[in-house]
Amino acid sequence: MQGYFITFEGPDGAGKTTVINEVVKAIQGQCKREILVTREPGGSKIAEKIRDIILDPANTEMNAKTEALLYAASRSQHVSEIINPALKRGDLVISDRFVDSSLAYQGQGRGLGIDEVAQINAFATGHLEPDLTIFLDLDPAQGLARIANVRSGSEDRLEQEKLAFHEEVYRGYQKVNQAHPDRVKVVDASQDLPQVVAASVKLVKSTFPELF
Amino acid sequence: MQGYFITFEGPDGAGKTTVINEVVKAIQGQCKREILVTREPGGSKIAEKIRDIILDPANTEMNAKTEALLYAASRSQHVSEIINPALKRGDLVISDRFVDSSLAYQGQGRGLGIDEVAQINAFATGHLEPDLTIFLDLDPAQGLARIANVRSGSEDRLEQEKLAFHEEVYRGYQKVNQAHPDRVKVVDASQDLPQVVAASVKLVKSTFPELF
Repeated sequence: MQGYFITFEGPDGAGKTTVINEVVKAIQGQCKREILVTREPGGSKIAEKIRDIILDPANTEMNAKTEALLYAASRSQHVSEIINPALKRGDLVISDRFVDSSLAYQGQGRGLGIDEVAQINAFATGHLEPDLTIFLDLDPAQGLARIANVRSGSEDRLEQEKLAFHEEVYRGYQKVNQAHPDRVKVVDASQDLPQVVAASVKLVKSTFPELF
Repeated sequence: MQGYFITFEGPDGAGKTTVINEVVKAIQGQCKREILVTREPGGSKIAEKIRDIILDPANTEMNAKTEALLYAASRSQHVSEIINPALKRGDLVISDRFVDSSLAYQGQGRGLGIDEVAQINAFATGHLEPDLTIFLDLDPAQGLARIANVRSGSEDRLEQEKLAFHEEVYRGYQKVNQAHPDRVKVVDASQDLPQVVAASVKLVKSTFPELF
């Protein structure tokens, strides 16, 4: 029994969580396998404790490498406790973010290097790769505007830094997508939600016709 | 200003902490630099929080890769917050365990592979290597006996498993030592403490004559 592994990626504000929920609603009745929707830390207690350290605002002195290693540690536990058992059962696993996020955010955004972060994550996941990655493509400024209602011209220094960081993250995603054209499929996330969902469902069905 | 970096390694029970304290006492009056003695997590708050997760007995389901990544994350923070600043000040830094411990315990002991764990730690430490590593060489069974008063023939299955693990760790150390003959110097730790200390002090003085 062999499962199927789909990940959704994209800049903040691209609508991953909403799109995943709608895609699941659309395919649930037709899909021949159980569907498991997950996102890091995915209900693994150890992974959650690790994420608490990463996200604790008090940990201001955390260096970028520590951050990348903690994400990898959390992911390793998420894979071994949640994702791999589901794939072994034969489920269709859909994850909201996975390794590509670390390549874009820590590898490119934090400047650690995509290859270095990829190596660490290959170790963490036992070289697990998604069968299909749907990249919800949105201009990072639009993404930030959607999230924070940032109005053009009114950003303070920090907001501008944030945009510069998110533009770097977006550049990281583009590099990853270009390096894996067979795995990563791009959906224009500036469209209305029903169109984004329809395009995503179409990709799932055309990639795994045996599931329907 | 460039500091000096010494690490002590060896199996559990080899006496690292005691020997380090005695070596510092012996050289303190003569050494031209400040001496900083540290051990992971070394007083870094973030590193301490990470270690709490590693060492929490409740986290029984932690996989070996997560463990190795958490040690590397903790070490990355220890290096950036404690060791690197001291080396920049020109101190003599003496660390009770460092990367070699992960190569031996996680790489060989847990079977993750010495090269893989070395790669992750090179990333974590920014390729920082000790100038001198003193390996306190002791038969792992003797080390365990010193710690736990394990008597020959009375070990239960778990104690035997423990010994098997520690023998694997010792094998890991031997591989590391053989791969780095210029950096790692071996001291016979089955000798009486004053002899072990004297041999260690001699190594420090002969390696860094300019410090005395």
